[in-house]
Amino acid sequence: MSFKFEDILTAYDRIRPMVHKTPIMRSKFIDELSGKNVFFKCEHLQKTGSFKARGAANAINILIDEKKSEFSVITHSSGNHGQALAWAAMQYGVPCTVVVPNDAPSSKLAAMRAYGATLVECDPIERKSTVAKLCSAAVYEFVDPHDDYRVMAGQGTVAMEFLEQVPHLDAILIPVGGGGLVSGIAVAVAELNPKIKVFCVEPEGKRLEDSLKSGERLWDQNAGPIDTIADGIRVLRVGTKCFPEIMRCCERTVLTVDNEEIVRAMELIYSRLKQVIEPTAAVTLAALLKYDDLLSSYQKIGLILCGGNVDLKCLPFSR
Amino acid sequence: MSFKFEDILTAYDRIRPMVHKTPIMRSKFIDELSGKNVFFKCEHLQKTGSFKARGAANAINILIDEKKSEFSVITHSSGNHGQALAWAAMQYGVPCTVVVPNDAPSSKLAAMRAYGATLVECDPIERKSTVAKLCSAAVYEFVDPHDDYRVMAGQGTVAMEFLEQVPHLDAILIPVGGGGLVSGIAVAVAELNPKIKVFCVEPEGKRLEDSLKSGERLWDQNAGPIDTIADGIRVLRVGTKCFPEIMRCCERTVLTVDNEEIVRAMELIYSRLKQVIEPTAAVTLAALLKYDDLLSSYQKIGLILCGGNVDLKCLPFSR
Repeated sequence: MSFKFEDILTAYDRIRPMVHKTPIMRSKFIDELSGKNVFFKCEHLQKTGSFKARGAANAINILIDEKKSEFSVITHSSGNHGQALAWAAMQYGVPCTVVVPNDAPSSKLAAMRAYGATLVECDPIERKSTVAKLCSAAVYEFVDPHDDYRVMAGQGTVAMEFLEQVPHLDAILIPVGGGGLVSGIAVAVAELNPKIKVFCVEPEGKRLEDSLKSGERLWDQNAGPIDTIADGIRVLRVGTKCFPEIMRCCERTVLTVDNEEIVRAMELIYSRLKQVIEPTAAVTLAALLKYDDLLSSYQKIGLILCGGNVDLKCLPFSR
Repeated sequence: MSFKFEDILTAYDRIRPMVHKTPIMRSKFIDELSGKNVFFKCEHLQKTGSFKARGAANAINILIDEKKSEFSVITHSSGNHGQALAWAAMQYGVPCTVVVPNDAPSSKLAAMRAYGATLVECDPIERKSTVAKLCSAAVYEFVDPHDDYRVMAGQGTVAMEFLEQVPHLDAILIPVGGGGLVSGIAVAVAELNPKIKVFCVEPEGKRLEDSLKSGERLWDQNAGPIDTIADGIRVLRVGTKCFPEIMRCCERTVLTVDNEEIVRAMELIYSRLKQVIEPTAAVTLAALLKYDDLLSSYQKIGLILCGGNVDLKCLPFSR
């Protein structure tokens, strides 16, 4: 089994009745500041507040088609994927269990509960082993937050929409955590318009470029999450299914941003676009403003505002 | 001279090249919470971050047509009108002076300066007298923040767009400060679809209903501004030109909300619509949730998100 563009095409038709076609936003101020034409794809306005609704909807729909009898789903997530899977499962009355690290933001846990999920708390480094334990005791369908072709295909539908809305982009910048979003988008873009460059944006400490340049996933299996304000991309290692697609379809040079750069970009998006986003959604604008030399030959830039699920009581620019 | 629907029609054509057609947003969660179909008109995404761009653009365009030689404009404003007039004036290279109270938020003053305005600070109760003093020393065209038919006509174009986008509203709720927005919208609605009820929403302490029921502007001329978190509608008295239009076209019952209700509605809009708005833009949702009995016979409700110019460092729900 491998990952194909056709999976994304099929997902696009499959999930359309469930998800929003999200709008594109622009800011004259940000265009002038960056010297580019910047197109923001508003996935923070997606169902459940992030693009994760797409992958989850695709996975649940595929399971519905495949399974003859009733089934339950399980995943691990500290945030958006958990909400998305709980939401997609609820649409079909499928029971959903989410293993959550005990340091996850309470607002995201509350949202998962509101979508009817059963939550199982664990130590942050025991997410996968807790899922394994639960799966050995009962029958669950596991839907990985990123390393799952069904999920990657769903996330790739962002690109289908984006290129319909703005056909002639020169480059797209994408936040990279586990790699589900970027691999889906990069595979779609490579098929639809291979002239468009796809750049990975990471928080400091990930060192994705080392792995891309060596062609191997170099991360230490036992290393913990990255200490970054961008809580949606704290996971250190790109998934085994995502990595080859990123190798094949993305630029080798990776754009890296720190907390201060992220907060500054976040504030720009709040004040200029008037959009409530989570820190992870600001990393691409942060990278655009930082890497002006590297990006100097690209004029029309697509940025993914990947999510808006932020704790309003703890905005980083509040006093 | 009087105020006519035709002024709004003409303004609509006149300002179209300068302003955005703002989108409508919806939230399934807020629909369920209120038991209504709620349509948010997103004027916080308007040029300069508020509907005030419409009135200012109309006034400046009329002045450009009328004046044979160069001229300067002046106004008093602690916020959105000042930004809007400065912006509209800058489009045509018209010099703009704004008299600002010395307690105005620094972010709004910075925005006025960025649009090239000259600022003159004064004591909050001396706004009008300071304008008068400046006008006695030099020639200015004065553009009142609300009590000006050119401004009222510009603000009325919100209704032209809104009813094109959502034709069958049952009621529209509008924040009322000086009355420019509500009088413009109410006159347009009375002409376009008189079945739609137009309700005024005010902060506690305004007592607009007393004046509407007596048919007279009962406010004490020397009374200061209202102490409310909704800084866009702190002005106590509705203007003399606006008042008769509100008398003629709005419901007599006025909806009144307090700070706590405003903050709760604001948080809903941030968390559910993912939109950055200023407190004034939340008063209509606050009223919708509070007055469910009074509004029980109306199903399709239009709310104006009037502006998004908020100091991000002082959001009322931050810790």
